[in-house]
Amino acid sequence: MSLPEYSTISRSDLLSFTQSVFKAIGCSDKDAALASDVLLKADLRGIDSHGVARLSGYVRLYENGRINTQPNITVIRQKHSVFTLDGDAGLGLVTAPRAMEMAIEKTGQYGSSFAAVSNSNHFGIAAYHAMMALEQDYIGMAMTNASPLVAPAFSKERMLGTNPICYAIPAGEEEPFVLDMATSAAANGKLEIAERKNKALPQGWLENKAGETTTNPADLKGGGYLLPLGSDADHGNHKGYGLGALVDILSGVLSGANFGPWVPPFVAFLPVLPDLPGKGIGHFVGAMDVDGFIETKAFKQRMDQWIRRFKNATPVNPDQPVIIHGAPEAQLYKHRLESGIPLIDKVCKDLTELATSYSLDHPF
Amino acid sequence: MSLPEYSTISRSDLLSFTQSVFKAIGCSDKDAALASDVLLKADLRGIDSHGVARLSGYVRLYENGRINTQPNITVIRQKHSVFTLDGDAGLGLVTAPRAMEMAIEKTGQYGSSFAAVSNSNHFGIAAYHAMMALEQDYIGMAMTNASPLVAPAFSKERMLGTNPICYAIPAGEEEPFVLDMATSAAANGKLEIAERKNKALPQGWLENKAGETTTNPADLKGGGYLLPLGSDADHGNHKGYGLGALVDILSGVLSGANFGPWVPPFVAFLPVLPDLPGKGIGHFVGAMDVDGFIETKAFKQRMDQWIRRFKNATPVNPDQPVIIHGAPEAQLYKHRLESGIPLIDKVCKDLTELATSYSLDHPF
Repeated sequence: MSLPEYSTISRSDLLSFTQSVFKAIGCSDKDAALASDVLLKADLRGIDSHGVARLSGYVRLYENGRINTQPNITVIRQKHSVFTLDGDAGLGLVTAPRAMEMAIEKTGQYGSSFAAVSNSNHFGIAAYHAMMALEQDYIGMAMTNASPLVAPAFSKERMLGTNPICYAIPAGEEEPFVLDMATSAAANGKLEIAERKNKALPQGWLENKAGETTTNPADLKGGGYLLPLGSDADHGNHKGYGLGALVDILSGVLSGANFGPWVPPFVAFLPVLPDLPGKGIGHFVGAMDVDGFIETKAFKQRMDQWIRRFKNATPVNPDQPVIIHGAPEAQLYKHRLESGIPLIDKVCKDLTELATSYSLDHPF
Repeated sequence: MSLPEYSTISRSDLLSFTQSVFKAIGCSDKDAALASDVLLKADLRGIDSHGVARLSGYVRLYENGRINTQPNITVIRQKHSVFTLDGDAGLGLVTAPRAMEMAIEKTGQYGSSFAAVSNSNHFGIAAYHAMMALEQDYIGMAMTNASPLVAPAFSKERMLGTNPICYAIPAGEEEPFVLDMATSAAANGKLEIAERKNKALPQGWLENKAGETTTNPADLKGGGYLLPLGSDADHGNHKGYGLGALVDILSGVLSGANFGPWVPPFVAFLPVLPDLPGKGIGHFVGAMDVDGFIETKAFKQRMDQWIRRFKNATPVNPDQPVIIHGAPEAQLYKHRLESGIPLIDKVCKDLTELATSYSLDHPF
């Protein structure tokens, strides 16, 4: 099996192109810049499944009338440090950073702040939003519900998205700790890669429509479902299910968005269910001021000590040391900022078609 | 294999006895009542490993000078809604509820509030503390670091405790959603049960000192280590490791307590390491006011709808419907409140010895 062919595009070229697409579908200059920054950060950090590879997905949703590119984002409820935004069907790439920006400001005032967001859409990588807090030396968190693909423990029905949880925590000389994880055993992107490569999945990622274990990635499209983190009853799948449920409740139930099986699908070709309990998809983001707990400088020194101790934990295999969450992504970020972003030909082709249909210049 | 013999003790008898033990080691009436309430709630909810079965463990720590039964718990830093308590080496059963009580009060003032706790000890079940928030219709959360037993992904060194995360979320007519989970594949208590029954473990819970997979529970005491939730690289063990790390950072690094391999062991016969980076063990607790996000009544109706929809998700096996987190424990709580708490003979014997050594009346 050979790797797919790819081209390397500079950050600035890819950013300009992405901005031109968002502007072409009606975004303001400011929103187009923000949404593009979110997508590019995914590509720069190596989360290729959540970067410009999804750009045409957002455009399809816009074309299907499911995304409002000129949203009037409003605070619909608040009490001191906590509040809810209605995203007015805007891009999650815009509503989530807006919510985070406000939460960061309120953290300055109150020490902590949390925002529920309803009536939104897919927000890209959770890490973008959580990491905004790092600029103020705050701890940031972000989560979102998503199209149902995961069955709860004991069920064979798609009830939850891969519902990611992200925490970003500042350090001193070391890179920040950034945990950004799907609450399923494997994220959907990993299945797509296996399917593209025609490879069998490990047991414990997927079950088919009948509720039987399977290693065939195509069984997901055939009505199967992803398994929660933990995979089976012996290995704590009730925990992965519980974490996915927590994300759904905070993002969906609390915000007034849809939840569970009613979360609208990301792909435009699947219909939205009738009798929805809420509006759009939901996010939950927030921040806490480190300095309210401990002097920031002391905290950063302690984080450096934590990180260095964990890096040096005795490895099973001396060639594979322990990894700190966020460190490989930070390294790749620096590298790709310099040397450009590799895009597989399938993505380049998809973006070229997008450029053609909106009559835009493109760098591919 | 037959079940161990047991006796059923009424809640009031067990509570009186437990209070008399805490008073005998120097706790005030108020602290003895609080600590006993925490332990009994574990037994009533069916988390038998964290109830009175641990009472003699706390006493041993007191006898070894590691628990101060007359602590002066103080706020050592605060900024509006966030603060840090020094537990003065007190029982976690007392310091954690004290922190939560203050966080609940500050949530009334600020909409959200979080407390880091340093210089504490084992706090019992996380659910006790998180569920305190439910009385105000707040969302509660609680986590704690603990004695190192879990190795990070790629490591064979014990670096993290089973570091639980708990969220308690109010509902309307349904029982509250209470997720209370260890971040390891299996909690230590499950290994103890397997060892007592002389049963092999499932693969994916434990590895031995050499870093090899094992199904023998005795390998833990032989220098092995528990695996993070996810168990192996194919099934997302970096996620369980990441969650355990998050708990360690918020509870230990942020509070000024110990963290990672330096967290003092719960068992009194193991020594505390030299050159500690902090004081005692750490917790992290907090609350958010639902009503700051959405009208409380509407939220409860939405939670009821969420719970009912998930309960009715299509089961794999019709005899095993989907379980909502916290519901089985709530049912058992009601049952045991009426009919008493079953204690296995080993625990009764242990408590009888405790009664003898402190010259206390006992109901066993």
